[in-house]
Amino acid sequence: MKFGFSVPVQHPPGGPGAERIRELIEQVKLARDLGFDSISASQHYLATPFQYFQPIPLLSRIAAETGEMTLITNILLLPLYNPVDLAEQLATLDIICDGRLVCGVGLGYRDVEYTVFGVERAARVSRFEEALTLLKRLWTEEEVSHDGQHFRLDRARMTLKPVQRPRPPIWIAASGNAGIKRAARLGDAWTIAGHATLTTLKRQVRLYRDTMQALRKPFPEDFTLSKELYIAPDRHTALREAQPYLEAKYRAYSQWGQDRELPAAETFAVPFETLVQDRFILGDPDDCIEQIRSHQEQLGITHMQFRVHWPGMPHALVMRTIRLLGEKVLPACR
Amino acid sequence: MKFGFSVPVQHPPGGPGAERIRELIEQVKLARDLGFDSISASQHYLATPFQYFQPIPLLSRIAAETGEMTLITNILLLPLYNPVDLAEQLATLDIICDGRLVCGVGLGYRDVEYTVFGVERAARVSRFEEALTLLKRLWTEEEVSHDGQHFRLDRARMTLKPVQRPRPPIWIAASGNAGIKRAARLGDAWTIAGHATLTTLKRQVRLYRDTMQALRKPFPEDFTLSKELYIAPDRHTALREAQPYLEAKYRAYSQWGQDRELPAAETFAVPFETLVQDRFILGDPDDCIEQIRSHQEQLGITHMQFRVHWPGMPHALVMRTIRLLGEKVLPACR
Repeated sequence: MKFGFSVPVQHPPGGPGAERIRELIEQVKLARDLGFDSISASQHYLATPFQYFQPIPLLSRIAAETGEMTLITNILLLPLYNPVDLAEQLATLDIICDGRLVCGVGLGYRDVEYTVFGVERAARVSRFEEALTLLKRLWTEEEVSHDGQHFRLDRARMTLKPVQRPRPPIWIAASGNAGIKRAARLGDAWTIAGHATLTTLKRQVRLYRDTMQALRKPFPEDFTLSKELYIAPDRHTALREAQPYLEAKYRAYSQWGQDRELPAAETFAVPFETLVQDRFILGDPDDCIEQIRSHQEQLGITHMQFRVHWPGMPHALVMRTIRLLGEKVLPACR
Repeated sequence: MKFGFSVPVQHPPGGPGAERIRELIEQVKLARDLGFDSISASQHYLATPFQYFQPIPLLSRIAAETGEMTLITNILLLPLYNPVDLAEQLATLDIICDGRLVCGVGLGYRDVEYTVFGVERAARVSRFEEALTLLKRLWTEEEVSHDGQHFRLDRARMTLKPVQRPRPPIWIAASGNAGIKRAARLGDAWTIAGHATLTTLKRQVRLYRDTMQALRKPFPEDFTLSKELYIAPDRHTALREAQPYLEAKYRAYSQWGQDRELPAAETFAVPFETLVQDRFILGDPDDCIEQIRSHQEQLGITHMQFRVHWPGMPHALVMRTIRLLGEKVLPACR
């Protein structure tokens, strides 16, 4: 079982951004020293009411501190990219980290992002699929010609290749049925977007397993769940400390429409007690061990990425979570 | 007088890219320890016959090693970017390096780049100008609405702001008269693209000074020349060692059409002896001191960025150049 730390990229606007970077680097070093396996960073543009660091420059900086840890973009908003731009940026990052990159991508869901990048919402799936195909081809083929619905390449020679051969793994995050089937068809692995309840995730994992089987594709070795987690010396403190930050984050994500990608009953617009139920891992170390094991057993995952910070949460609490995880929880869950 | 080191981003295709990054980091550390003032990185896509690292992830990684040095993108191909993407990536980089970023941009000239990004060559100037205006506005304004020829923003709120207020400096590289006038009008400074001869540059600096005066804009404090330089213990060795790499680079740049942006007589398709004449700084330490002083006096520059590596040149030679520069040349030219 592998465990990852999802770095804090979302913060309240204003304030000393460079201080956030210094804290984040301290957190990454602590996670590295405590034996975490991976670091991931997510992406949004124009992320009001938060500010949101861009993951490619951020992971490039962090690469200096990560030792042997895997670096995961979880996720990049693939439909917004020109595939040549993304292929070259990620090839550079894979070179910078000497072949430790995993390319995680997703479809996105926010209209403001599609609009500013000139992407019709109705075309987001076809852009996603076309860009993904080109990403793979540009990384592996010497010369690429392509005449598609969105992109055109005429004998493009992308001499800048990633370190990993044939290419970095591509993981696709998805939270709806169509997306999960697409992840099975086009990705090396589906990354479970853990903001759904465990009940929903169990059903979705069955769908993914069935689809992979029907496609005669081998089940991925790295089967990853990305999950909000908060840990404190006791359960009451965990809930009390997490609530203001976690609640504010999900209020924003509900406004952004992330829950519209989930099954109908899974709206985020519910009281906090209902929201956390079966959805987030919260509690004292023993609670967390039990909940992590429960996810392992019920979903068959082999890798968990923990989001342990929400906008405004102080550095000291993030450090404590990483320390408690590394010292008390992970050794019991390996 | 400030001096900068332009990091090696161009390499022959194939080979151990991660080894190139390790070398480059060693070079940056040496430059830092010898008192260089800035680090810069340039950009091309699909850069056959070379591979070309992307500058934003590269500078983000290097930021870990740069101490107090300024980080300069010299240059980014602005017409290829969506301004929201670029504004957020560079804001992230400015946060990563705690406000030491200079945003250098240029127009580009290679058709293959415009084509894969879906930019009409005829529209490159209007895209450049529109993107530049939006970059400034997104960095400094709370909410941006814009209905332009290329981009449309409807009350876009870019909460992710750079550390530098009001914004990072914007330097514009240009090698033709129209570009120099545009740099005067739209940039905080013109960066002299040093692949022209000193004779041409003198004329161009006059044009820039006159234009700035006519616009009643203050002359920039950082007036930067980017220049190929190679230094060896004696002049003969300098010429002999530099020739194969420098010649191959300019053969490619001639094929790419960079010299078509220069005045007519400045074609790169000439014998090496003619090419270097009055154009590159080559020789022993005393030769280099003399040539640097000559550029300072004749152009009034206050900052020089040295490109001291061309594709295939061994790491040891780059290290020697940096060392000779830092120990013998720069102290005499400050």
